[in-house]
Amino acid sequence: MEDSQKGKESMQALKDRIRRDGRILPGNIVKVDSFLNHQLDPMLMRDIGCEFRRRFAAEPVTRILTIETSGIAAALMTGLAFGVPVVFAKKHKSANMAGSFYTSAVYSYTKATMYDVAISSDYLVESDHVLIIDDFLATGNAVKGLLDIVSQSGASLAGIGIVIEKSFQDGGRELRAAGLHVESLAKIRSISDSEIVFED
Amino acid sequence: MEDSQKGKESMQALKDRIRRDGRILPGNIVKVDSFLNHQLDPMLMRDIGCEFRRRFAAEPVTRILTIETSGIAAALMTGLAFGVPVVFAKKHKSANMAGSFYTSAVYSYTKATMYDVAISSDYLVESDHVLIIDDFLATGNAVKGLLDIVSQSGASLAGIGIVIEKSFQDGGRELRAAGLHVESLAKIRSISDSEIVFED
Repeated sequence: MEDSQKGKESMQALKDRIRRDGRILPGNIVKVDSFLNHQLDPMLMRDIGCEFRRRFAAEPVTRILTIETSGIAAALMTGLAFGVPVVFAKKHKSANMAGSFYTSAVYSYTKATMYDVAISSDYLVESDHVLIIDDFLATGNAVKGLLDIVSQSGASLAGIGIVIEKSFQDGGRELRAAGLHVESLAKIRSISDSEIVFED
Repeated sequence: MEDSQKGKESMQALKDRIRRDGRILPGNIVKVDSFLNHQLDPMLMRDIGCEFRRRFAAEPVTRILTIETSGIAAALMTGLAFGVPVVFAKKHKSANMAGSFYTSAVYSYTKATMYDVAISSDYLVESDHVLIIDDFLATGNAVKGLLDIVSQSGASLAGIGIVIEKSFQDGGRELRAAGLHVESLAKIRSISDSEIVFED
């Protein structure tokens, strides 16, 4: 099977899965606990990693960057597909963290609080070409925090790969308007009457 | 190459990596931020998943169980090797969590605090045969919390797979004395004068 055909099918599988298993909560929140946020489907995650590899094939990616916890599975499989290390930003500085860190403040829309994301300067360097991977893109606050950290490190950006984008919120539009290469595997155009509608 | 030979080599690679990259902190804490706890090495994680598959090959595993955050990478790759879903226990009940949960209280030795671990009853059922995977085993408190949850669900236990066991602490000994099948890929016998000594 051709690569792009295979990618199309696995991303159709992702949309089917969101439609079947996604639960809609107040505030336009889509919960996909059965395969992405609490339980993980390793085979779907592997397909997602391969699809990100295909979509960013032109980029000489040296490192994958994500945020704990929900970004880790897709990022790990993308790192496997590219054969490069994966770094996950920590949300809370822990007692065991030592040395020098890049940090950025992020506003969580779903939790209505600010938190810091932190990455050790050992694992993001100026010569890196970084692909950011995350599970959701809505307001884009988490991704903007990661972009800030990439910028602090002096590394270059390959692009941003998102599993599920809520395209009715502004994050994706803003990032693309800034000239960034954003690839979202499933774009939710609207959530209405308990129904999830995808783009195209 | 024979499966067991390949497994032996990849686990030697794990020990070499711990020896080379592990940093020893006060309180016998070993930090392996470069491949397991902050940055992840996807290829090593894949080999670790394959090795757990080999060591528990006799078990009809239906689900992998771990705890966020550091257990997720090894658990995901083990799930991929077995072709079964992975569930990670959450450490903090979030606003988005709804429905029925199994919970257990865990004492964190490194953070000197109690926390709850929670798993939705949707993702652990009586007919499951569960393999627990975690990054570290020391006092065994985190694993005991997961065992409590497995017991609450009525599921059966395939065993416990650990990436790094500190065999100078009591957790592994207690779990084996209770008749449980524990497999640790690297066993640290002692940490002295900034040197890590493995069991062999």
